[in-house]
Amino acid sequence: MLKINGKRLQRSMEEMAKIGATPGGGVNRLTLSDEDREARDLFSRWAREADLSINIDEMGNMFARREGEDKDAPPLMAGSHLDSVPNGGRFDGSLGVLAALEIIRSMNEQDLATRRPIEIVNWTNEEGPRFPPSMLGSGVFAGAFKRDFAYEVRDSNGKRFVDELERISYRGEIPCRPRPFGGYLELHVEQGPALITEGTQIGIVEGIRGLTWLRITMKGVRDHAGPTPMHMRKDALVGAARTITAIRDIPSKIDPDLVTTVGEINVSPNAINVIPERVIFSVDFRHQDESILKRTYDAVLEAAESAAKQEGLELEVKDLGSSTPIAFDESVTEAIENACEKLGYTHMRLWSAAGHDARYAADLCPTAMIFAPSVNGKSHAEDELTNWEDVTRSCEVLGSTLIHLANLP
Amino acid sequence: MLKINGKRLQRSMEEMAKIGATPGGGVNRLTLSDEDREARDLFSRWAREADLSINIDEMGNMFARREGEDKDAPPLMAGSHLDSVPNGGRFDGSLGVLAALEIIRSMNEQDLATRRPIEIVNWTNEEGPRFPPSMLGSGVFAGAFKRDFAYEVRDSNGKRFVDELERISYRGEIPCRPRPFGGYLELHVEQGPALITEGTQIGIVEGIRGLTWLRITMKGVRDHAGPTPMHMRKDALVGAARTITAIRDIPSKIDPDLVTTVGEINVSPNAINVIPERVIFSVDFRHQDESILKRTYDAVLEAAESAAKQEGLELEVKDLGSSTPIAFDESVTEAIENACEKLGYTHMRLWSAAGHDARYAADLCPTAMIFAPSVNGKSHAEDELTNWEDVTRSCEVLGSTLIHLANLP
Repeated sequence: MLKINGKRLQRSMEEMAKIGATPGGGVNRLTLSDEDREARDLFSRWAREADLSINIDEMGNMFARREGEDKDAPPLMAGSHLDSVPNGGRFDGSLGVLAALEIIRSMNEQDLATRRPIEIVNWTNEEGPRFPPSMLGSGVFAGAFKRDFAYEVRDSNGKRFVDELERISYRGEIPCRPRPFGGYLELHVEQGPALITEGTQIGIVEGIRGLTWLRITMKGVRDHAGPTPMHMRKDALVGAARTITAIRDIPSKIDPDLVTTVGEINVSPNAINVIPERVIFSVDFRHQDESILKRTYDAVLEAAESAAKQEGLELEVKDLGSSTPIAFDESVTEAIENACEKLGYTHMRLWSAAGHDARYAADLCPTAMIFAPSVNGKSHAEDELTNWEDVTRSCEVLGSTLIHLANLP
Repeated sequence: MLKINGKRLQRSMEEMAKIGATPGGGVNRLTLSDEDREARDLFSRWAREADLSINIDEMGNMFARREGEDKDAPPLMAGSHLDSVPNGGRFDGSLGVLAALEIIRSMNEQDLATRRPIEIVNWTNEEGPRFPPSMLGSGVFAGAFKRDFAYEVRDSNGKRFVDELERISYRGEIPCRPRPFGGYLELHVEQGPALITEGTQIGIVEGIRGLTWLRITMKGVRDHAGPTPMHMRKDALVGAARTITAIRDIPSKIDPDLVTTVGEINVSPNAINVIPERVIFSVDFRHQDESILKRTYDAVLEAAESAAKQEGLELEVKDLGSSTPIAFDESVTEAIENACEKLGYTHMRLWSAAGHDARYAADLCPTAMIFAPSVNGKSHAEDELTNWEDVTRSCEVLGSTLIHLANLP
């Protein structure tokens, strides 16, 4: 049975967290930034030191491979991502990549071979705030997006994805397209309060909720805040505020598991004494049932239309992309469950409300995820935290499951 | 009776509008910018050509003087400002300065003398977006602000008012402080829809409404938009949205003349998949009755407190400054009314909801304002428009009133 070096994993996590470290204890490692490059370089060095061969595809996805006894068998894949949201946490993504690396290091030390090859993957642009939509790297890999669509995505400064990929020297030559895999495992922090609240050590993820992202634009009339009577105003921010309030209240009317968020809003001209002319805001909603996502879309649209009508605004609703709910492979979740039992860790089954690259991997091969508890359920924040004992436990579960799957006939 | 040359006034307005002209037909002439200097230089040249002597005080306020028969009598003052908001209109401010100049030109041609001297004034920094607060030039002149407070104000690039004043060579040596005046008249575009809606040619401004500016900060908890259940959220943007909606509805509960505006909002971290942690937004409200301003302040506070409590947010309300309502001198508004009657123009009395330099002039001498109609009530926007016949009419009313007041014993 594989022995994990928890201290070494902790040191690797701490070393990685120095790249893009923020004063508040988080990391700022936007996709294809200098910090992303530095994180990739560090992972590359560590992977080579662990005798892995590294392949980079044309989307910048990195695959670090350990050969199996049967070189031609489809490899097992384990990994996650090294990019972060702005001022995000140090566990989100890194844990899945570095835990897989720690497993390889320990296997090397303990001379453990597997029948199938194992590949650690670092997917490009899991997060997406800089280059929306998220999960571009795994999405192109699985055929959900065209490569050239991803290449043309621009950040808010107008920089293209492909140019930034070239700039940081991670545009590889291997085509980014599906190839056979024996399975995909992703260890990740829960980013929610379920495990911590229940006092459970391991989360076995049964699937990923569906997600819809919208961009709503409301356009009114710019005017002076003093002499324009209230009844003559077409105030885009008032329309947006009424919509945001309504969106907050939708889950209580549809389903308690539904979550709806307006995270981004930009107002023009944004001056204290000028009536706002144009407001652009985002909408994010998630659920495991597609019919509920559809009802939510209709409710958001109705709220926006009603607010726009009340205020006399022009309305534009743009679909920024959505992902359908996906259930993971029962044989893989069972393998994780067996590993938990063998190791003696408490576990529960749950659905992920956050998107993950496992979403697209599941289109290609038997896939499931393992969750480690998030203190206070917090993530995408500088004070995101997973206790080191939980980091080690979850790495052990990943290792045990990975070796089991990699030895299947 | 004075005959005005409307075509010449139009040509002057068009010439002035070339300085800082924007593609959308407005002007961008921020205080103490190169464009402000160019506008000042042009006004100087025209004033000298009209035989006026020019004095510049240490705030950059410009006074162009025409002697009276009684050189020692306190002069009549007429004017406004040549600066603009970013991408503002071509009539706001310029009309008051250039109409006064046209009156002097016509008086010169028609050999019209007055008992009192007349001074045309161009006040520095009426608008204020670059160097807040607004009306700094007239405010220091009237003793409402200290000169050194104004000198130290910095723009968003960290440049000091006094350094920029020196840079454009408009830091004069005359002390900026009150001196005796016989009266102050300011012609301005209405910037609201009252005259256009009523089909009235001239507005006689009875006073300037009081104004309060607040900055409200709401702080919640940043978290991931996916896995955080609705009931565990402390979403600062939801709190702000509920407050903005409530603020919009306050006037209908207090007074139909009251106006309330949220023009500026900034969200952190402002990402599509992150629950907003901090929202800072502005509040602007105006009315002519101080007790109503007080009730409005209380209502805004109550709305913010209620929304913050509902969402579990920290709340901070900062007073950014307010001005009390001021009523103009009845003898001056009557003189304007008489001029309208004599000229046969329809007129109505109204209060200004926008701030003007007349606000501070009224602390020094009998003061009132004349409004010309704004098409669609629009201002602080590139499509701000006053028809040329209205420009000429309002200039005639200003001239007639000015000469009447300048001849009073």
